Amino acid sequence: MSTTKKAKKHGAGHDAPQHARTRPTTLDPDWEVAPTESLRAPVGFDLAAFDRGSTPGFAGGKAAGQALVARHADELSELQERLFAEGRSGGSRSVLLVLQGMDTAGKGGIVRHVVGLVDPQGVAHRSFGVPTPEEREHDYLWRIRRALPEPGYIGVFDRSHYEDVLVARVDALVPPDVWEARYDEINRFEEEIVASGTIVVKVALLVSYEEQRARLMERLERPDKFWKYNPNDVDSRQKWPAYQEAYQAVLDRTSTEIAPWHVVPADRKWFARLAVSELLLDALRRLDLGWPPADFDVEVEKKRLAAT
Amino acid sequence: MSTTKKAKKHGAGHDAPQHARTRPTTLDPDWEVAPTESLRAPVGFDLAAFDRGSTPGFAGGKAAGQALVARHADELSELQERLFAEGRSGGSRSVLLVLQGMDTAGKGGIVRHVVGLVDPQGVAHRSFGVPTPEEREHDYLWRIRRALPEPGYIGVFDRSHYEDVLVARVDALVPPDVWEARYDEINRFEEEIVASGTIVVKVALLVSYEEQRARLMERLERPDKFWKYNPNDVDSRQKWPAYQEAYQAVLDRTSTEIAPWHVVPADRKWFARLAVSELLLDALRRLDLGWPPADFDVEVEKKRLAAT
Repeated sequence: MSTTKKAKKHGAGHDAPQHARTRPTTLDPDWEVAPTESLRAPVGFDLAAFDRGSTPGFAGGKAAGQALVARHADELSELQERLFAEGRSGGSRSVLLVLQGMDTAGKGGIVRHVVGLVDPQGVAHRSFGVPTPEEREHDYLWRIRRALPEPGYIGVFDRSHYEDVLVARVDALVPPDVWEARYDEINRFEEEIVASGTIVVKVALLVSYEEQRARLMERLERPDKFWKYNPNDVDSRQKWPAYQEAYQAVLDRTSTEIAPWHVVPADRKWFARLAVSELLLDALRRLDLGWPPADFDVEVEKKRLAAT
Repeated sequence: MSTTKKAKKHGAGHDAPQHARTRPTTLDPDWEVAPTESLRAPVGFDLAAFDRGSTPGFAGGKAAGQALVARHADELSELQERLFAEGRSGGSRSVLLVLQGMDTAGKGGIVRHVVGLVDPQGVAHRSFGVPTPEEREHDYLWRIRRALPEPGYIGVFDRSHYEDVLVARVDALVPPDVWEARYDEINRFEEEIVASGTIVVKVALLVSYEEQRARLMERLERPDKFWKYNPNDVDSRQKWPAYQEAYQAVLDRTSTEIAPWHVVPADRKWFARLAVSELLLDALRRLDLGWPPADFDVEVEKKRLAAT
């Protein structure tokens, strides 16, 4: 109703009637195209041509984006609680948010500002850095498996098994035939975890070369940001083309029907946060979460309690 | 200045000049006595006489309490970030918040509403339920040690090693000489972790017998709360006097100079949340956290970056 009207007003009208027709009623009018559609890496996605300052599908500006995150916070939080309740009541489902991106792409900000909207009790956050000696003794998926979210949890991976086809490929940490085989291994691995009841939301935060320079420079200019800087960040930056090639291969070879990649322009922080917040909300909505029924006799318990 | 004036206006004047004299300048005027003082379990603390609907040291009401939590949120969040930065830069310090309380005392609400104020990236939350078979194969402190916060983190224990002198004592899960020995063991254990750089903030959330009944009844009346109810909760409630005795022993024997207990009346949720928020903030302030200096040559890095 009024949603449809507003959507038209914001530009989803004449030249995009197919979106106007299929837009879910829950979609905020500022989305001309649902973020699950507008951000999903299409077949043949061309990373080099991607505008990292754009806001695909979203007609609003920064204020509208921030307002929408705030407006959806309660629903996000309640659905997370339902998921947690389900996990406590014998359910097996969970959500895994995989965040990948070059340094300064904003992974940390997503965790603080988006994941921070829900109850920390139901969040299992894990950063994957350089493997520890113990981790190195095992297959690259070993540490990943151990960090998968338990039923009821939202798992958050700040970097992930994709590092094993990104830095591992760029820096030749393993021979080509080894990283080459990993794309299929990762697809099979993700099939497994999806089959076990985990919704996998994969997000590539794509920051531009220029914006990365500016953000790194800020870390060098502000003493409260020194701790975020590592000389290694410039080393990686010097390998930018090789990293872009490795990201392109990830998007080409591991964006599957069951665990698609979302490509999120990250030059505007507000948009990246909005995008991830909406993708997470969509994942939770798809679970169609109710409240678990009582596994005890409510009337009997009321009497027992009243007698105390 | 104006802080002192307001404090007097709110009642810390004539009959409590000793507090007015020593109140830290950072203390909000609504606190007549600093929460670290007003909530700290004194020697000879009498649990039976404790008013669980009171707001020790705080002159304001619910609105003032909620406003103060909101007003301190940014500082809490920034200090947490500084702690995290320190941990990333080779520091060894951390904070451990230990939450104990009977069912419905509000531990979960504290995690959501207080711990939820800081970046989830820097929080290590852990609930301790009935020990798993693996945990049972080890000493009761084994699972606790494994869950201690890494440097830079705020660890949150929802229940803790104190269960091993609470339910273990009440339900006689181990012989008396075993739980009897644990008080001293726990004190030594906490000495160790404090010495290693962890500030331990212990909070006993004390809900009244009547309020617990009302909260359990609500869980039986609202289908969205069934999942929080367990028939076992009434079993424990039926042992209320034995639990109070066990809590009294905990407070008598494990409130030490280095890791004192705070007794927080929990019948008013807003006060319990305010209290824990202030205790956590105090712990972080005591660390006197700066920002870690650069461990690289800033000017050299700026040039390297500019050249890319």
